[in-house]
Parts: sequence; structure tokens; C-alpha cells
Amino acid sequence: MIKTVRMNIEYDGTRFHGWQVQPNQRTVQGVIEDALAQLLRREVRIHCAGRTDAGVHARGQVASFVTESDFPINSLSRALNGNLPNDIAVHDVFEVPEKFHARYSALSRMYRYTLSERRRALGRNYVWHIKYHLDRHMLMKATEPLIGECNLRGFSKGDDNDDYSTVIVKNEWTFEDDLMIFTIQGIRFFHHAVRSIVGSAVEVARGKEPPGLLEMILAERNRDLAGPTAPAKGLCLERVFYDRDTRVGQA
Amino acid sequence: MIKTVRMNIEYDGTRFHGWQVQPNQRTVQGVIEDALAQLLRREVRIHCAGRTDAGVHARGQVASFVTESDFPINSLSRALNGNLPNDIAVHDVFEVPEKFHARYSALSRMYRYTLSERRRALGRNYVWHIKYHLDRHMLMKATEPLIGECNLRGFSKGDDNDDYSTVIVKNEWTFEDDLMIFTIQGIRFFHHAVRSIVGSAVEVARGKEPPGLLEMILAERNRDLAGPTAPAKGLCLERVFYDRDTRVGQA
Repeated sequence: MIKTVRMNIEYDGTRFHGWQVQPNQRTVQGVIEDALAQLLRREVRIHCAGRTDAGVHARGQVASFVTESDFPINSLSRALNGNLPNDIAVHDVFEVPEKFHARYSALSRMYRYTLSERRRALGRNYVWHIKYHLDRHMLMKATEPLIGECNLRGFSKGDDNDDYSTVIVKNEWTFEDDLMIFTIQGIRFFHHAVRSIVGSAVEVARGKEPPGLLEMILAERNRDLAGPTAPAKGLCLERVFYDRDTRVGQA
Repeated sequence: MIKTVRMNIEYDGTRFHGWQVQPNQRTVQGVIEDALAQLLRREVRIHCAGRTDAGVHARGQVASFVTESDFPINSLSRALNGNLPNDIAVHDVFEVPEKFHARYSALSRMYRYTLSERRRALGRNYVWHIKYHLDRHMLMKATEPLIGECNLRGFSKGDDNDDYSTVIVKNEWTFEDDLMIFTIQGIRFFHHAVRSIVGSAVEVARGKEPPGLLEMILAERNRDLAGPTAPAKGLCLERVFYDRDTRVGQA
């Protein structure tokens, strides 16, 4: 019988060339597909909710796949973790209705970007160490326009003919000692968008650009106005939201 | 003029063979002494508040040294960080009164041990992943006797003729989702003591040993009764307490 299976995945992106399979590169998708193929004894193609670049992390990536294997799904999480390297952890694996697709069924994605004004040894692969002083009030001010319907063309790498419209549901800065954490949740994001938003906000907060920079980039849809793309290591895909976590056979 | 200098140091112990200099091994002390020797143009011997084993981390290690160099101390932190690998961060370097010694002047040390019941990819080098269920109430119950005057002979690696008496000032478990964090502060600790306390508490919390195990180890001073020593990677020297952070020339 054909089953559709969903997995929640955490990974440390440091030693991966991103999510997507590429020849001769260590990728998250490649490593998981290899581990699955061994267990299910057939090739599997997995689809994720949000492809991440090299160095970007995920605490709550979601992937789905379709298989005819009769491997018991409730043993798959444990078996997979036994076969995966220690920079990937599969947290939950369960059967979902046939129409579920990690990417197309996702309602929104939440990313988090972490900056630190202090050099850090512990957790140094998860933060962008900023070497100049940032005005925290300006960080908040700079990103204020990023809410509701937005066109992210000016923050995204890609083809001008594509559609860059999205809806941003939440956008928030939190501060804990030397850490500055930007959380943004939207129905979809585009290549480099979150890192470009953060990079632009940093230019404002260090006083190199006016407070209205991000508003202008949104309006002009011109990437030449955006600040440098923030480094990959500060970014983490925190969570993906779906209508509900429907499991086959559950109420 | 001879100066006594204090440094606050953070390090990720994963790729170090502990604090103490050893021939042909990468140690925290060795790496810092080499970087200091380059800057100060003479050999320096540094002393730390609490030597850590291979794989153990520090967020708030303190070290001191004496030097005749006229290198400006207020530039030393920046210069050192520029010369140190990214798994060490020096946070604060300042001149202290001549009588200050990182080890002998310390009033107490605070360690933190972190366990997780969940496999983790992010931050996996900073937690002990426990593969069985732990009763959180039992963890708290097990470590209750470790407060006030204690003799840690039964938890410590070393010579029976040495003195293992200490005073434990604080001992606390905190729980955050899948994380179980043990914080213990005392005037001094001994080789493997915190890891042996945690390893013993885990035996109680998984139901392999009676709730009174740690009390018995304290009373009997017999290390054969203690549980397996918990892995190094979960342990972090969080902070060292001194009478006050006296700086030379400050009120």
C-alpha cells in the first residue's frame, strides 16, 4: 500500500552544502534519502517545506515522501536516527493523508536570525558576530514595515519575472544579554530574503543607512539598495505551520 | 612594572584536551599561553580558577597571570581574540591587585550540567543525550542532600589521603522542554565530582538505584557506589565568584 509520510527534522547546517541534493556534495536531502533508501530498500525522494542554503540550520524543517515500503512507520524515527550522522536529528515520523506535501501544504514558515555583539566560543556556529555597535531600537524600527502583504523582490536573489509577493504574519526582535534575535513568520520566503532583510536592518542600526531603508527597498523592489546578505550561520528555520498535524487513523 | 592581569574566558571544550598544558596536545592553557607570548613577547604562565577536563566547556572561566610586559592591558582582549582560534573567546582582561590569583582568590565556582531526552543536532556538543526516560522529580530528590558542608570523596577521582571537603552553596534543577539542567555552586569541586554526581542522579531517576543513593555515597565516601561518570560534553564551568572585581585604579 502506498503511504505518505511526514518527518520533522533538526539539523546543524555547518557541514552541509544546504538542503538540496547536488552531485558530490554533502547535503541534508542526500544524507536523509540515503539513510531512508537503506531502511526502506528502495529509492525515496523527499520534499521539504523550505530549502535551506549551505550553513543555514533548521530546528523544525518538515519533509514528506511517498513510499510503498511496508517498513513500520512508527519504528522509522528510531531506525533513521540510528543511521544518520549526529548533525541531523529526526524527531517525529508519521503517516499523513495522501494529499499532504511538506512544501505545498505548508501555511507559513518561521525563521529566526541570531546576532551577537560579543565574540562567542559556545554556539559560535549559530550566531553572526557583529563587530560594531547596533542600536537595538533602530533594528526594530528598520524592520517595522515588514508586516502584512509584502513584495520581497528587493530582498531576494532570483529572476525578475518571478512572483515575490508574500504575507508576513509576524516580525519581532527579542534581546537576551548580548544576543539580538529576529523572528519572522510569513506564508513564503525567497532565496536569501531573510538574510538580506537582516543585513539591511544592520546597516540601519549601525548608522550607515537611514531608518527608512527597508521601506524603500520594499517600495522600489530594487535589490541594489539592500545591505549585504547576512551570513548563513545566524539563520535557522524554526518551524513550519500546517492546517493541523493530521495523522492517518487519528481523530 | 610588574602587573597582575585577570581574564574571563569562554571556550568550547570539544576539540581541546582539557585546560592544562600537556605535551603534544591542544589544550586551552597552551593555546592561550602561546597567543599571549606572541603579544607580550615573553613567556607567560597562566593560572585558572577551575581546571576542566577534555570536552568540558566554560562560559566563565577565569585566569590570571603576572607579567612585566608594557603591552597596554586595555587593548589585550581585542588583540588576543584576534590571535585565538574561534573556539576560545576572551571577554574581559583587566589589571587586578598583585595578590589576586584566579584559583586561590576564588570564593566559589558554579557549574552547569545539561541533559536531554531528545536527540539534538543543534548544540549537540553541549548536552548529554539520555536514551531512557528520567523521572524529573527523582532527579531533584536524588541531589537534595548535596547542600552545605559535604565531603565529596565518594564522587571524586583521586588520592584517598586528600581532603574532599567543600561547602555547596546552591544546587538546582531547571527544566526547559526536553532539557534538564543541573546547576551546582560550591566553594570547591574535585576531579570528576560534578559528572559523578550527575551520573549517580541519573541512575536514581531512571529507576536503577534507590532515591537515597547520593546520600549514601556522601556518608560512605565510597566511589564504588557512584553511578557512571556523566560524559564531559554536558558540563560547563559557568561562573567563578570573587570577593569583588577589584580593578587596579578603580574605586
